[in-house]
Parts: sequence; C-alpha cells; structure tokens
Amino acid sequence: MNPEEFRRVGRQIIDYVAGYRERVAAMPVWSRARPGDVRALLPAAPPEQPEGWDDILGDLDRVLGPGLSHWQHPRFFGYFPANAHLASVLGDYLSAGLGQLGLNWQSSPALTELEEHMADWMRQLLGLSVAWSGVIQDTASTSTLVALICARERASDHAQARGGIQALDRPLIIYTSPQSHSSVEKAALLAGFGRAHLRALPTDAGHAIRPEALADAIAADLAAGRQPCAVVATTGTTATTAVDPLAPLADLCRAHGLWLHVDGAMAGSAMILPECRWMWDGIEGADSIVLNPHKWLGAVFDCSLFYVRDPQHLVRVMSTNPSYLQTSADGAVKNYRDWGLPLGRRFRALKLWFLIRAEGAEGLRARLRRDIANAQWLAAQVDAAPGWRRLAPVPLQTVCVRHEPPGLEGEALDRHTLGWVARINDSGAAYLTPATLEGRWMARVSVGALGTERADVEALWEVMREEAEAASGASG
Amino acid sequence: MNPEEFRRVGRQIIDYVAGYRERVAAMPVWSRARPGDVRALLPAAPPEQPEGWDDILGDLDRVLGPGLSHWQHPRFFGYFPANAHLASVLGDYLSAGLGQLGLNWQSSPALTELEEHMADWMRQLLGLSVAWSGVIQDTASTSTLVALICARERASDHAQARGGIQALDRPLIIYTSPQSHSSVEKAALLAGFGRAHLRALPTDAGHAIRPEALADAIAADLAAGRQPCAVVATTGTTATTAVDPLAPLADLCRAHGLWLHVDGAMAGSAMILPECRWMWDGIEGADSIVLNPHKWLGAVFDCSLFYVRDPQHLVRVMSTNPSYLQTSADGAVKNYRDWGLPLGRRFRALKLWFLIRAEGAEGLRARLRRDIANAQWLAAQVDAAPGWRRLAPVPLQTVCVRHEPPGLEGEALDRHTLGWVARINDSGAAYLTPATLEGRWMARVSVGALGTERADVEALWEVMREEAEAASGASG
Repeated sequence: MNPEEFRRVGRQIIDYVAGYRERVAAMPVWSRARPGDVRALLPAAPPEQPEGWDDILGDLDRVLGPGLSHWQHPRFFGYFPANAHLASVLGDYLSAGLGQLGLNWQSSPALTELEEHMADWMRQLLGLSVAWSGVIQDTASTSTLVALICARERASDHAQARGGIQALDRPLIIYTSPQSHSSVEKAALLAGFGRAHLRALPTDAGHAIRPEALADAIAADLAAGRQPCAVVATTGTTATTAVDPLAPLADLCRAHGLWLHVDGAMAGSAMILPECRWMWDGIEGADSIVLNPHKWLGAVFDCSLFYVRDPQHLVRVMSTNPSYLQTSADGAVKNYRDWGLPLGRRFRALKLWFLIRAEGAEGLRARLRRDIANAQWLAAQVDAAPGWRRLAPVPLQTVCVRHEPPGLEGEALDRHTLGWVARINDSGAAYLTPATLEGRWMARVSVGALGTERADVEALWEVMREEAEAASGASG
Repeated sequence: MNPEEFRRVGRQIIDYVAGYRERVAAMPVWSRARPGDVRALLPAAPPEQPEGWDDILGDLDRVLGPGLSHWQHPRFFGYFPANAHLASVLGDYLSAGLGQLGLNWQSSPALTELEEHMADWMRQLLGLSVAWSGVIQDTASTSTLVALICARERASDHAQARGGIQALDRPLIIYTSPQSHSSVEKAALLAGFGRAHLRALPTDAGHAIRPEALADAIAADLAAGRQPCAVVATTGTTATTAVDPLAPLADLCRAHGLWLHVDGAMAGSAMILPECRWMWDGIEGADSIVLNPHKWLGAVFDCSLFYVRDPQHLVRVMSTNPSYLQTSADGAVKNYRDWGLPLGRRFRALKLWFLIRAEGAEGLRARLRRDIANAQWLAAQVDAAPGWRRLAPVPLQTVCVRHEPPGLEGEALDRHTLGWVARINDSGAAYLTPATLEGRWMARVSVGALGTERADVEALWEVMREEAEAASGASG
C-alpha cells in the first residue's frame, strides 16, 4: 500500500469511524451475537492473493457489525467508562502512522520525552507532588504486577539477583481487600507469592479496609515468622467505588517497611477534581500508584499511568542492558524499557497529548463533574423510590442498587436482580453490569460514557423501574 | 470533538502520515536530538483551556519532528525491522475508532473471534499443526514471561494455589543460551526463579545451543537436588539469527518433563516460507511459541503472537473469575483475559486482518524473500571484500560483519568498529546497530524495512566501505 492509496482508503476509514460514532446511539448497546457467529462469516484459510479494499471495507458492517458491543454508546452503564475520545483517537492514529518504536531513548527521543512530559502534566493535574515519576503501561493489571514485583525485591533485598523468591527463609505476605480488583490477586499469584500468602483484610460498612485489621494481620504474620511485604489499597473499588483510607494505611506501611501500592485504575482520574482529593489523603506516603486515563478520562485504550517515588528501585528491578540496546545517551536519559515488562513500546503519549490539549484541563474536569452529578441524581431517585435500595455510598460515578420487593430474599432475590438486569441488557436500551456484594447480586450503574447526558440516565432509571417493578408485580 | 470535526482533522492526520511516509526516505535515518531537546519545546504545565487544532497540528513538525528516529526509512538497518505496513495501520485506526474493549467474549464478540481467527490464519501460514492455539500479546517479553510462569506452575503442580514458589522444597531451574534475548533473563527474574537458577548453556560455532550441554546441565542439577523446569530456545537469535536445534532439545524436554518455549520473535515470521521451515524442525515438541508479526511481517506494533499446546493449562494459571466479569456465554467461548497478563485488550486482530488481506500470503512471502536475497547479496560482498569478515551464518536477513584491517585487534578493533558504525549513523545516510559477539563489537546489518530495496543495500555497503576503509587507511 503506497501513501497515495493510504490517503484514499484512510479517508474511508475516517468516514467509517465518524459515521459509527454518529450512529452508535441508535444501536442496541450490547451485541446479541452468539458464540461462533463472527467466525462463521470468515474464510477458514487466509487469502493467497491480495484482496481489494472494496471487499475489505465491505466486510466491516457485514462481518464485524453484529459482533460489536458499543462501549461508546451513551447508554452504556456497564463495567466502567472505557472512553475513546476522538481527540485521543487521532493521537493514536499519529502513533501508528509514524511507526516509531521505543526500545531506548535514542530509538525515538520524541516518544520517550513526550511520555515523560505527559506523565508530568498528569501528575500536576492529579495534585501529586514532584516526588512522583511516571510511565505509561498498558493496563492496571500490568502496573500492579510491576508494583508487587518491586515490593518483593525491596523486601528481599533483591533476591532476584541471587536465588529469587525460591530461596527466601521467610515467606513474604501481601495484604489487600476482598473488594480489591481481581488483578491484585492475579498479580500476587503471578509474582510467585502464592495464595496462602495473600491476605484479604476485613472491611468496614462502606467496604473500605479497616486499618486496625491491617495492624492485626501484620502482627499475626510477624509472630508466626512470616515477613509482611506489601499492601494494595484501592481508591474506588470495582464493585462500589469504596475508598480505602490511605493515611492510616501509609502510616502502618511506613512503620513496618511495607510497600504501599494504590490502585486508582478507574477512580484515579477523578483526582483532577480538587473536591475529590480527600480520597487521596495520605497518597504521598504510598510507593506506587496506578490510574488508567483509558477509562473515565477518555484516552483511548491502552494508557495506564504508573507512578513511583523511587524510580531507581524500579529500574534496578526491571533493567536489562544487552550490548545491542546500549547507546551513548544512556546516562543522561530515561530508558522506559527499564520501567516495566515489555521492551518495545508504542508512542502512547500522543493520545494523552492530543486529549489534554483538545479538551483543556477545564474541559476534562467539567465532564467528570457532569458524570458525578448524574450519578448523584440517580442515587437520589433510588433513595426516594419504594422497594429500591442503594447498597453503597456514591462518592463518584457508580451507583449500586437492588430492587427488593417485599418477601423476596436470598436466591429468589438474586434471580429477580439478574432477571431485570438481563432484560434491560437484552433489550438493547441500555447496558449495566451485575456484580456480587456480600454474597448477593446487585446492579452496578457506572455512569460516565463520553456521550452520557442526564437524559440518558433518566431513560435508564425509567427502564430499570419498568423491568424490575413489572416483574415483581410491585408498583412504584 | 464531534464526528464532523473528527472527519476534518482526521483527514489532516491521514495526509500528515501519508506525507511523512513519502518524505521519510529523504530524511536522516536517525534522530540527532540531544537529551532534553523535545521537552524543552513543551509547556511546563498542561493547558487549562482547550487549544485549537491548528496549534496542535502545527506542533507536530516543530516539536516532534527532530525527535523522531525513522524506523520506516528504507535505509534503516538497525535492531530488527519494526514495520508498520500502511494496511495494518488502517486496521489499527479502525480499532481505536471503534473503541471496543475486550474484557470477556461478550464485551466484544467480534474482537475475540477475529483474534481467534487471525491466530488460526497465522498458524496455517506458519505451517503449525492444529494442536496449537494462539492469542495476541503486546510483546515477546510479555509472552516469554507468561510462558515461564506456565512452566513454573506445571513443574510445581500449581504452587500458586498454595504457598507459591516461595514454598517449594527444590529450586526450579531455567535453561537458555547466552545468545538468547535479554527478555528471557528478565522474564526468569521477574517470575521469581532468581539468577542463580538460570543457566546459560554453552553454544556451538554457529552460536546455537548444544543439546549435549543441556543434557549435562539437567543431569548436574538433578544430581544436586534441583528441579529442571524449562528451556527457552531461540529461532533466530538477536545478535546473529542463530537457530537452536529444536528437535533434540524437545526430546530432552520430553524425557525430563521440561517446558520448551521457543522464542521466534523476529525470525518466526519467516516460517511463512516453506524453504525456512527446517529451522522449526521439532517445533511440534515445544509447549509454547512466540513470534512478533509487528517486526518483519509488517503488523504495526503491538502484535505478538503466543501459541500454546495446552490452553487449559494456560487458562488455569492466568484465570480470574470475579462476579462482575462473568457472563452466560462463559462456557462456550474464549475469554482472552485468561490467556495473558492484562485484563483489558484492544481490537488488535484488525491490523493482522487488514495486512493479510491487503497483501495476500503470496505478497507477504515475496517481501520476505526479497529481504533474504538482499541479505545474501550483502553477505557475498562481505565475503569477497579484503579486510572484511562475516561473523556468522546468514540464514535469514541479518548480516554480522567486522572490518578487520591488518594489525588491528582487541580494544583497538572495537574502537574502529564502533567508530565507523557511529559515523554512518551520525551521517544520517543509514542506521545500523553495533552489538557484541564473544566479547568483541561488530556491526549488525538487519535487512527488511518495508521500503528497503537492493539499491538501498548497495548504498549501505558503499558507505560501510567508505567509512571503515578510510579510517583504517586500507584500500578495498
């Protein structure tokens, strides 16, 4: 494909994407495809000869269309906002088009320095001190794995340079919450700690870690000859956006030499709002932070910001320095290959650069405030409606609810909840994700897709009442 | 940014990328930026108010231009071909524009099923049996880490479900080659094995692992009460594209129950050529394979294919199943979150789909054959030129050379080598990467950028002779 052909077909792709975004609000939110539907439309074997672009582009609607679930739909209330803001999309287009590859600073100085600079712009927007250094990873799962490996190596005085975690005398222990994201347990297992050395601490009524519980657990492990290693706290848990109390947790970590990693994957973006910063009271006592601008903030996936206070430790744990990667600039620059797992890296900073410039900090703040206000509105409706119960505080943009008709409880209540949520999702009118809290199913309404306005939340609430109350025979 | 504005600015980005690709051959190959040059052009703080697109796009040349190293330049002979074929770029554009997110099958059936299908198309193109199942990861570094964690858990009967690698009685041992990529050592250390449990096996004259050396090392470790765990073999090492002998290594692995991981990150793409398949003699005896279509094949970064023979084992090691990720389709579909480290995933298969269809298998094969022939041509020139030495066989597209004027050896020879390579790179006429082999510096000429034709290789050879021979006072 030569540049002239790229111009021609590229414009068609631009038009296709623009048309998709224009049409998306009119589509059913979630795909109704059945397993195998998409593959059934694809040839079993790859083509031997080149195909024409008319054929390729003609397959987009035919093959992919029914298999798309529309995360960019204004009535998407599932999981978390995975916003792909169009300004950010264009930054990503530039990245792919330029075909830069960051192996070391010299292999693309602009890639490394813009990443450094965007991590710093974001640090300022988030209200973090200059003591933090940042890097862009792919996901919070990866960032948390990196954090726990850093913790492991600090606690073991760099055992990886010797016999590794295989050769330690005392097992290292990780503390987190039963409400922490599944990626925390996964990271701890992949890093080699073992499930027996992972503690899920008891939480309070608001589903946040109780610092006394951490103190007790540390004392018990020390008494039993085990070595406390790290705490993973969450700002805005997945199920309910609960906020673990960082200041007392940081005090305990400092007293016992534990690594404190803060998972703000979804909610960290809200720290651009001064009125939300109370959630990060104590953050300067942490060792590492992850937040994903590819969620609520609007950077197109993948863009996970990972901050550390001791980059030299991170680099010592992650560094490799084979001859073919050495350059004369090495002493004077950052080589981000030593800040995470992969060697190669995309020019990811472009999507943040375009997003922040096109929206301005005030534009980003205004959008997040809109979403929080919409969630507050929904919470107030739930609180006022007979038969409905809100299950957790709403500090951010997630509202956890159950419709609890008189006489329904236990598994019957679960069936009712899963039933009305499934009917909404199947209808295509909206999409929301069920989840369990203390053993019972609930509906999570996660507000914050780019196009979601008050009218969309109002429409959701209407359909929630219809589907839930009709099924139970209750009247609002 | 609304879709209409996206249409307008998107066309400007398309034109910018097309113009970049048209102009790139006329630019100095490698950036001459000095550390800090790019950041010095950026405002210290993020903008509070939105900026206009004229300002943003105007900064591309001004701020980024001098900081770009041109991997897509036809006289780029460094590292490895990191080709960003424009058809693949358009597939990536669609991915970013649609804003799909793969958390589970249902969150984007098309994303999962096209990935499954492209992994299968590639399996067919590579000549692998139907026993292999594939997934797209970001990089070979990550794929190799996943492979070694799978090996660790198989050897330890899933220790992660208990006390982890911390609680094993006998240390697990990893075997590889001193020529294996730095990511192999990094993966072994991150997975917790410890450097003391990583063996770099002696190699033969062609820099490939000697199977007898593996047999000896296994016997010695067993005798000392240690537990052999995995072998990482390479098809096409980084320095010289040496080919480890898979068949005898696989036999030893089978006999002793070791995991065999094959790193074909760069050279694996060549397995689409039947005449290169001898390099994979024995591949069906491996447990996992990684190859990066984002290198030589032309898929825009990131696109690393990871194949396993036992996907159930992979899924058992990597799976998480919190309530909020469960769907009614779970038993009938692949959830790729359980095939690697990250939970979220881009719609990466689109870039392979577009690339394979736009080129056809024959088009991809023809390009790789062009590059191999160009490397053979250069190897022949080196062999025939007085004072020049080729340091390794050229089975693929990498030629390792030294200019060795009479009387120069040791560190003086190193200075000579690094000197003429640096002068070529500084001149902007071409770019190639020095590396060490058996303790001495050499020049690696890695042929295979998309635009590299015979004339470019001829021009490189001319400038190599000029710079090297002028410096030594020798005449060709």
